[in-house]
Amino acid sequence: MEIRHLQSADYDVLIPQINEWWGGRDMAGMLPKLFFNHFKNTSFIVEDEGKIAGFVIGFLSQDQLDEAYIHFVGVHPDYRKKNIGKTLYETFFTKVKGADRKIIRSITSPVNKTSIAFHQKMGFVMEQGDKTVDGIAVKANDDGVGNDRILFRKEIE
Amino acid sequence: MEIRHLQSADYDVLIPQINEWWGGRDMAGMLPKLFFNHFKNTSFIVEDEGKIAGFVIGFLSQDQLDEAYIHFVGVHPDYRKKNIGKTLYETFFTKVKGADRKIIRSITSPVNKTSIAFHQKMGFVMEQGDKTVDGIAVKANDDGVGNDRILFRKEIE
Repeated sequence: MEIRHLQSADYDVLIPQINEWWGGRDMAGMLPKLFFNHFKNTSFIVEDEGKIAGFVIGFLSQDQLDEAYIHFVGVHPDYRKKNIGKTLYETFFTKVKGADRKIIRSITSPVNKTSIAFHQKMGFVMEQGDKTVDGIAVKANDDGVGNDRILFRKEIE
Repeated sequence: MEIRHLQSADYDVLIPQINEWWGGRDMAGMLPKLFFNHFKNTSFIVEDEGKIAGFVIGFLSQDQLDEAYIHFVGVHPDYRKKNIGKTLYETFFTKVKGADRKIIRSITSPVNKTSIAFHQKMGFVMEQGDKTVDGIAVKANDDGVGNDRILFRKEIE
């Protein structure tokens, strides 16, 4: 398996299959083309013999010069439990550290227990929320009405 | 009326009303919170006595160091035909010019005749497409399957 930067052409390959990776859940709407055109240098693909096994899309915060943000990570169902998400995140950390970023942020939905466990394993901590769901601190309506989110934060050195 | 930078708190004000600005069309999905947290310094609000009359969300391309991108512009129905979109775009142009950006890109849907006319008035040209819709060059499936887009480009000096 190889890791490389995201390319614009990956969009046409990924978008038609991405909802299937989540068992039919609509995820494509979270991936407008702009990320594939303008944030390739902090976004990465893991490939296995030319097939996309996983990807991460992140960027350097334009407002907070010590921060970077991970917008989306996805691993093909056939490639789960192989530490591909970990490799992608670590590649992102190294990249943004090179741009003097010290804080990485990411958000996830309280129902996504896999994502919560993954972020905790990767050293993220939960920011204080304003309500509790399933014993977890969340920010109510953070990503729109009814869309509570856990706010993750990690410091890199 | 005043123009100011977008703030994170604008999210909670804008999102509940934004679909109404488009006559019920679902636009909120195009505005994840990340734009309100990380791209405020190239995004602007026009306010009239504390009420949001319009806004533009754009950013500096992280990959192409001479480019900037406009993701979204919206004007409240009560404030249309008052050149608010023009003011927002011109404010964006000035801002990104200060960051040495020379090319501004934006996309729109071929059905959005108002947006097409607006971009042309603002000096954008259409990039070459790969098919023609209503006599206009579009890039087929540019923003996902079935989502043809017109690719606009403007050079600033």
